[in-house]
Amino acid sequence: MRHILVIGIGAGNPEHITVQAINALNRADVLFIPTKGAKKTELAEVRRDICSRYVRSSDSRTVEFAVPVRRTEGRSYVESVDDWHAGISETYEAMLEDELAEGKTGAFLVWGDPMLYDSTIRIVERVRARGRVAFDFEVIPGITSLQALCASHRIPLNLVGKPVEITTGRRLAENFPHNSETSVVMLDGEQAFQKIDDPEAEIYWGAYLGTPDEIVISGRLADVREEILRARAEARERMGWIMDIYLLRKGADFDE
Amino acid sequence: MRHILVIGIGAGNPEHITVQAINALNRADVLFIPTKGAKKTELAEVRRDICSRYVRSSDSRTVEFAVPVRRTEGRSYVESVDDWHAGISETYEAMLEDELAEGKTGAFLVWGDPMLYDSTIRIVERVRARGRVAFDFEVIPGITSLQALCASHRIPLNLVGKPVEITTGRRLAENFPHNSETSVVMLDGEQAFQKIDDPEAEIYWGAYLGTPDEIVISGRLADVREEILRARAEARERMGWIMDIYLLRKGADFDE
Repeated sequence: MRHILVIGIGAGNPEHITVQAINALNRADVLFIPTKGAKKTELAEVRRDICSRYVRSSDSRTVEFAVPVRRTEGRSYVESVDDWHAGISETYEAMLEDELAEGKTGAFLVWGDPMLYDSTIRIVERVRARGRVAFDFEVIPGITSLQALCASHRIPLNLVGKPVEITTGRRLAENFPHNSETSVVMLDGEQAFQKIDDPEAEIYWGAYLGTPDEIVISGRLADVREEILRARAEARERMGWIMDIYLLRKGADFDE
Repeated sequence: MRHILVIGIGAGNPEHITVQAINALNRADVLFIPTKGAKKTELAEVRRDICSRYVRSSDSRTVEFAVPVRRTEGRSYVESVDDWHAGISETYEAMLEDELAEGKTGAFLVWGDPMLYDSTIRIVERVRARGRVAFDFEVIPGITSLQALCASHRIPLNLVGKPVEITTGRRLAENFPHNSETSVVMLDGEQAFQKIDDPEAEIYWGAYLGTPDEIVISGRLADVREEILRARAEARERMGWIMDIYLLRKGADFDE
C-alpha cells in the first residue's frame, strides 16, 4: 500500500508552513511538485525554497510534473473542469505507478490549504476510485490567501455574529450584499468588484500575499476601485502573472 | 511605543503552529494568555505546551489573565457582545500599562486564526482608539478548526466553483440550503442542524479537533443526526466542555 500526503504549504510566505506540514514533508519519500508554466517562476521558486529550508531527510527526491491545461471551448464551466480533472487524474495515476514504489510515501505540495478552491483532494479520490493504484491518504491544512489577506489588513473576516460568504467572481453579484454582508472573492478573472455599485461597500484587496511583492489596498469601494484596477494591471504587466483576492463588506460590528 | 503581536496558534494540535507564529512567539517579551475558567483546563494545557515547545527565548515571561464573562440578561446579543468587549478592552488596557514597558513587545495567543470568530483584533483596536496606551500591532494567521475539520474528513470545503457560507447556529436555518449549498457552522450552542430537514443534506461534524480527544462523524444528516447528538452529549458530559464545528452540504461537484 502506498501512502499519499496532501500538504498545504501556505499562501506564499515560506514561514506560513506549519510544524505538522514540515513533519509531513520529512515523512515523504517522493515530493510531487506541479509546475504551472514558466510565467509563475516565482511560485516554483517558493516551493523549492520551502523544500530546501524544511526537508531534512536526504533520502527523499523531488518529481516535478506539468499540470494539463484546462480546455474551455465548446464546454460549460463545469464540463471543462470535469474533463480537466479526468486528465489530471490520469497524470497522477501514471506518476504514482512510475515514481512511487509500493509501501512508500508521496507528498503533494498544495498552495494555501487543500480544502479551499483546490482540487488535489478530488483528484486523489478519483485516482483511488479508478482502482489501478492502491493507496491511503492524509490531508495537512495550510494557511490560505484568505487568512494572509485578513492578517495583512489586520481585520477580522466576519462582523460580530454575522456570516461570511467565500465565493468566485462569477457569483459575487448574485449574493453581495443582499444575502451576505461579507463576501470574499477568490478566483476572479474579471474583477467582479467593478460591478458592485453600493456607496457603503468597503473593499480589502491584496495581491501576491505573503511574498515580497505583496500589494494591499483598502477603503470605500467607490474611492479605491480605480486605484486597485490600476495597481492590478500594472503589477500583472510587470510580473507576467497575478494572484489576488479581496473582501467586500457592508455594515459594521454591532449593527443590529 | 509598544508592539503587540496577535498570534493564531492553531485549532488544538500543537503542530498546527506556523514557523511565522513560532518566530513571533520568540520576539515577544511578554506572552499574554487568557484563561477561560477551570473547565477547559485541557485548552490551557495546550497553550502551555505550545509555549514550552516553541519559546526558546528565556527572557520572556507569561502573564495569565481572566477574561470577563459575557452578561446576557436584558440585552440583545449585539449589546451583550458590545458591553463584553468594552470590559475586555479595559482589562487589556490596564494589563498593557502594568505588564508591558514602553518599547517592549507583547503577544496574545489566539486559538485558531484571529480573523475567524475571534475578537482579539477588535479589542486591540478598541484599546488603541481609547488612546491611553500607544502601540502598533501585527496579526499572524493560524490554522482554524474549519481547516482541521476538512483535513480530518479529507474533504474540500467548497463544491467545484461554488460558494461557501461560514455562519453561526443562530443563522443557519435562514440560509441553508436556499442561498448556500455549503454552510459551515461555528459557535453553535443549540445544534441548529437538528432543524434542517432536507433528505439530501450531508453533514461533516467534528469536536475537539486536532486534540487526542478528537471525534469526527459524517454521513447523510438524516442518518447520523442522532449519533452526533448522542456523541456530543456524552463527550460534553465526560469532558465538562465541548468545542465543535460542522459542515452541511447539499449537492455534488459538477452539478450544473
